[in-house]
Amino acid sequence: MSYVNLKVYSGDSLEELVEVLKIAIARRSLVIILGECRVDYEGRAASRLELGERVVIIKQDSALLVHRPHGYSPVNWQPSTAIIEVTFKPSVGLVLHAVRDRPREYLTVVFVRVGLVVIGELVDQGGFTMYLEERDMRDILAENPWIIEEDLRVLGVEKPIGEGYVDIYALDKSGRHVLVELKRITATREAALQLYRYVEVYRKEHGETPRGILIAPSFAPTALETLTRLGLEYRYVDLKRLWELFKKRESKRVSLQEFFTKK
Amino acid sequence: MSYVNLKVYSGDSLEELVEVLKIAIARRSLVIILGECRVDYEGRAASRLELGERVVIIKQDSALLVHRPHGYSPVNWQPSTAIIEVTFKPSVGLVLHAVRDRPREYLTVVFVRVGLVVIGELVDQGGFTMYLEERDMRDILAENPWIIEEDLRVLGVEKPIGEGYVDIYALDKSGRHVLVELKRITATREAALQLYRYVEVYRKEHGETPRGILIAPSFAPTALETLTRLGLEYRYVDLKRLWELFKKRESKRVSLQEFFTKK
Repeated sequence: MSYVNLKVYSGDSLEELVEVLKIAIARRSLVIILGECRVDYEGRAASRLELGERVVIIKQDSALLVHRPHGYSPVNWQPSTAIIEVTFKPSVGLVLHAVRDRPREYLTVVFVRVGLVVIGELVDQGGFTMYLEERDMRDILAENPWIIEEDLRVLGVEKPIGEGYVDIYALDKSGRHVLVELKRITATREAALQLYRYVEVYRKEHGETPRGILIAPSFAPTALETLTRLGLEYRYVDLKRLWELFKKRESKRVSLQEFFTKK
Repeated sequence: MSYVNLKVYSGDSLEELVEVLKIAIARRSLVIILGECRVDYEGRAASRLELGERVVIIKQDSALLVHRPHGYSPVNWQPSTAIIEVTFKPSVGLVLHAVRDRPREYLTVVFVRVGLVVIGELVDQGGFTMYLEERDMRDILAENPWIIEEDLRVLGVEKPIGEGYVDIYALDKSGRHVLVELKRITATREAALQLYRYVEVYRKEHGETPRGILIAPSFAPTALETLTRLGLEYRYVDLKRLWELFKKRESKRVSLQEFFTKK
């Protein structure tokens, strides 16, 4: 473990901490600040968080998170931020100013007191593997069809076609039907042929040739070749991102009840 | 600031830390652990994160977050967890075992080394205020119609009706049309009457009485009275949750491009 570089500051004045933080941010260290702060955000929307004790994390890619002592979700956050400035303003406090482009966003954290600062360089090369059931992959994609293509409208899942079931049945923005077949692991030539059979059966039954899209985290070379030859489409899906949506969905299910409260 | 209670442990053995952590978790303190760990998750899906240096946060409501040194999003997380057990297993390490009900989920974090533990009780009563433009509120609701009602299908936004524009035009699951009017602040009687005019004009033009729903963060008593009298519906919207969706949407826009990469 590389904790040789782990440093802890407590009891330092805000002015002293400004210097420490400037160096840490320039070096792209991980920074954790526990302190009393207020937070202002301005972008397409705006927010103000009044004074309270919080944990502010600046990551090694300069993503910035403000966590309150409760709740799994940060109250303010920015993905990898373009500029983080640290200044000390007498009679104001220690000011963190994070600016982002596209969308243009300004996050300002003003610490009036800091209890602790931890600075370190963490090394994390650990691979992340996730296992989603095909059923869950299908549901996530059906609920977030923008992942497959913009303005795709899902008409159904597990649509019977011939002797099988196609995972997702949809309509694209030009009004053409789309058959989507998913594979949880590497898609083989067999998967491409299976999708082709669905397209053919659909064409015979409806007199319209639908688009066929095969979605998988990876494709065998023979699968890609077969897809191209049969005029079918394919998309690589990032399982890790599907995983994030899966977890969000689980949280959303819990919060749906809380969202609107008939008071 | 209540940092009287802020304690830092470094250089302690994993066995010593088990006792410290048990007490902290029982007391519902905030716990931050920097260490080398692997993470296993099992629920409807499953994930495995190999060894690496990370920041694990247990919040005062027992929400648990695992943060890698990069990325704004935690790699694993659980909202307020039912049970968190801490044990030391020789030749394995310090084991955090977090169990959740509904959905049933198990998160296991195994630390092989811990560089630092911070324990504290943070006090955060600060109010959070956010300002979303009505246009953004409308877009978020149109993109997440499940917030308004399950299986609601949005047909359009800013639909011209008579001399005005209704914010969201939708179809409910029983096939009835729905007119949704939004207010960014307290809805008054005037807002209820405005929605009623849209419903009336729509009825005359289409020969069908649509449902009318007024959505606002709060309602004047006279507004509620008028809505009820006119047979209109209403929903309280939690601006803070809309805000979270707004921020997620901004992130999603960035990541949409990355989602599927034609390799």
